[in-house]
Parts: sequence; C-alpha cells; structure tokens
Amino acid sequence: MDLKLVGIAAGNPAHLTAAAIEAISQAEVILIPQKGEDKEELSQLRLTLCETFGAGRVIGFDMPVRDPDIADYKTRVNLWHDAIAAAWLHALGALQPGLRVVLLVWGDPSLFDSTLRIAERLRGQMDFTLSVVPGLTSIQLLTAAHAVPLNALAEPFLVTTGRHLRNSGWPAGVDTLVVMLDGDCAFRELDPEGVSIWWGAYLGMPGQILDHGPLSEAGPRIEARRAQARAARGWIMDTYLLRRQRADNAP
Amino acid sequence: MDLKLVGIAAGNPAHLTAAAIEAISQAEVILIPQKGEDKEELSQLRLTLCETFGAGRVIGFDMPVRDPDIADYKTRVNLWHDAIAAAWLHALGALQPGLRVVLLVWGDPSLFDSTLRIAERLRGQMDFTLSVVPGLTSIQLLTAAHAVPLNALAEPFLVTTGRHLRNSGWPAGVDTLVVMLDGDCAFRELDPEGVSIWWGAYLGMPGQILDHGPLSEAGPRIEARRAQARAARGWIMDTYLLRRQRADNAP
Repeated sequence: MDLKLVGIAAGNPAHLTAAAIEAISQAEVILIPQKGEDKEELSQLRLTLCETFGAGRVIGFDMPVRDPDIADYKTRVNLWHDAIAAAWLHALGALQPGLRVVLLVWGDPSLFDSTLRIAERLRGQMDFTLSVVPGLTSIQLLTAAHAVPLNALAEPFLVTTGRHLRNSGWPAGVDTLVVMLDGDCAFRELDPEGVSIWWGAYLGMPGQILDHGPLSEAGPRIEARRAQARAARGWIMDTYLLRRQRADNAP
Repeated sequence: MDLKLVGIAAGNPAHLTAAAIEAISQAEVILIPQKGEDKEELSQLRLTLCETFGAGRVIGFDMPVRDPDIADYKTRVNLWHDAIAAAWLHALGALQPGLRVVLLVWGDPSLFDSTLRIAERLRGQMDFTLSVVPGLTSIQLLTAAHAVPLNALAEPFLVTTGRHLRNSGWPAGVDTLVVMLDGDCAFRELDPEGVSIWWGAYLGMPGQILDHGPLSEAGPRIEARRAQARAARGWIMDTYLLRRQRADNAP
C-alpha cells in the first residue's frame, strides 16, 4: 500500500499546493475519521475537499476517544494513538494490497500532529510505503495574515505549547515564541513588560479573527474575544506569536 | 500600490499554493532582483515561474551587495536592507499608483527572510498596502522528504541558525533543533551522544540530497557530501533537524 499523508492547511482550497491536490485526485482510497473528537465543521471541510479534488473511494473509520481517566498526558495520548492505529488497521487491512491511500492532515503532517507517529505503529502489521506531502501550517497562516516576520533578524525562535509555557514560563535565550495547543490563554501568566502579541483564530478559514498589540493591552482583549468566539461557534483553534523587545533586536 | 510578497517554496510549481499562483497571475508587475548575490540557477527558477504563471511586466532591479568591510553582522545586513529598499523605491517609484505588484520570496516570507523588514522601510516614502501569501518553508520540505515529525509528542522545538548554535551550543530545555543558514556544519561542535540528524540540501529541487542517522555517524558523512555537492553545483542551500533522545521523549 502507498500511504500518503497530505497536509491541507486549514482546508481552504486556495492554500493547498498543486502536489497536495494531485495526491488527493490520484488516491484510490481516502481514509477519513468519523465521529470522535473532530468538530462537525472540520469534518465537513474535509469532505468538501474529497468531493472537489478526489476521485477514489472515501472510507471512514471510527475515531477513538481519549480516556479521561488516564491522568498522565503523554500516556493518555500514546494510548489514544495506539487505538487510532488499530482503527486504521481495521479499515485498511481489508483492502487489496498496492492501493494508493491518502490521509488528509490539518496544517502540515510534521507539526504538532501525530499522524506520522500513528502510521509508524503499523510497521510489521501491514505492508506499506509512507510519504508526506507538506502543507501550510497555522504558523504561516498567522504570520502571513499579520504580515509579520516570524523571527527577528538572524535570531532564533521557539515553537512551544500552552502547557509548556504555563509550566516553565518564558524560556531563557530566546525572544520570540510561537504558542500552539493553548486552550487556556497561557500568555496571562507572563510579565507583559516589553512583550507584543500577534494572535489569530480560525486562521485561513471563514470567520478568521486577528488581533495584535502590546501584551498588556491586547492580552485581556484577546482573552475576551476568544471566549466570545468559542461560545458563538462552539469550538476554536488559535495560535499566537510573542516577541520580547531587546535593544538590538527590533523585529 | 498593492504590494504582495508571495512565498514560492523552492520554486517547484508543485509546491506553490493556488493562492500564490493566483497572485502571480494577477500581478501587473513582478519585481525581481538582477545580478547581485543570487545564484544563476535560482534566478532562472524565478524567471520560469514568471513565464509560467505571470501575465504582467517583469521589472528587474539591481540587487546591492553586502559590504564585507563592515565587521558587525547585523549592522552589515541592516545597511544592505536599506540599500535594497532604495533599489525597490527606484524601480517602483516610477510606476503609476495603484498597480498590483508582486515580489517572489523563497520559502515563506516570514521565515529567515527579510523582505517584510525591507518593505517596512518604504513606509512614508511610497503609498502602498502590504500583504503576504504564505509558501512552504524548507523546514516543511525537509520533514516531508524524511517523513519525520518536527516536534516530539507535545514537546517544543527551537528554530535557530548555524551562527547561534556555534556560539551558544545546544540550548537548555529543548531536545529538538532546526538549524538554518549554516554555512559551516555547526553540528560538528556538538557532543553527538544520543543525537540524531535529518539533513537535506536543494530541498524540493532537482538534485535534492537527503541523509539521516545518529550524528556520530551521519555528521562526518554529511560534511563530506555537502562539500562535494557544493563544489559540483557551485552553491548549496541546506537545512537540518537535530533531536536529542530522552527516555520520555521518543520521537
């Protein structure tokens, strides 16, 4: 089996690459999750891409849910990934060998997505080759929407999670942070002095929201807008860039 | 003037998004550098994109060169950016107002590229709106080519430069590094114990080279392949991912 993980950015066809569209159109099978944790709106976006560009069969698998009784975060997620791999094997194992199978992945398959880690669990249980078609990440959709550079001139930046930022604070030696997977506005815990924020929600989608400014002013505003948008739409996905000003480090 | 910075990844049309192709095709002017520091092969790739997708006029500007007599790196680069902004102003100032102008940017305009910083220098001297069309970065081309995740599960990663890695060593608190702009194999200076490398040169281009493995074995091999490829092709662009193994942090 030729298994391709295809990055679809935020599902907007304008943000797909020609290679991604080609992979979708040449797939004999597109494997998509059903039920489970995904939002109805996101499922619909994925189905629309299948209908627009796909020519093969769309096969669904029941997406397992995470077990809330497992306290340790990584253990909980790893066991969930095991269950997803088993669901893939159930759905794909019945197919004839040699088929071209595509999985659609939000953003890029390399960035805060575990599709690659799940696929590796199938080694030895299924005969397949694995390849990746890259897609735009929410980080690029964020910086493009704000027309802001990701890094200051010749300076490093750290891509981290809300959990890490909350637990460890602003790390030493780096003045630019990108924060992902933050369900609880971890920027609230930071000393806002000299820090600017560029925030975006539903990036690359209809209803995209942007905000930016000094963290002291924009932070509370973003917190309120985020809560409001989440309540109105039923879900939210957002990410943000934080930059700490240094004399020699103007962005 | 409507000035759009369009990310073109490594110039391979398969890696352009539909939005990037649309921006190029609708541009009335495409501004491209002539002479200067760019490699002939890269200039040709850019011209091919203009011919394939563009319908407007292609206007060249003479790309200034960096002054090697200025010792401080950031000062040298900032003065070079001033000179590029002056060259843009010279080329664009003569055009009628309101035109749609596109600049093609390697990779993504937000990542280790200063086109946004240069454009900001034109504020007050020219009347323009600025927008960005994102493109795939060499980081995504690297991780896709190797089919390797960028981050370990729920863990942060740092994107840095060869210069920083050489000067500061492996930073604390992070086990995954992406190293860019490294002309001198800064990975040589690291303790290779427990470190793996995924390296790529000419990513997304004809002649792409990949290598990976434990740094102790792959490092010297990459150094030799890099020198050989650079000599044969006359130039090289490469990037790599380093991951340090931790017991709780299998990639």
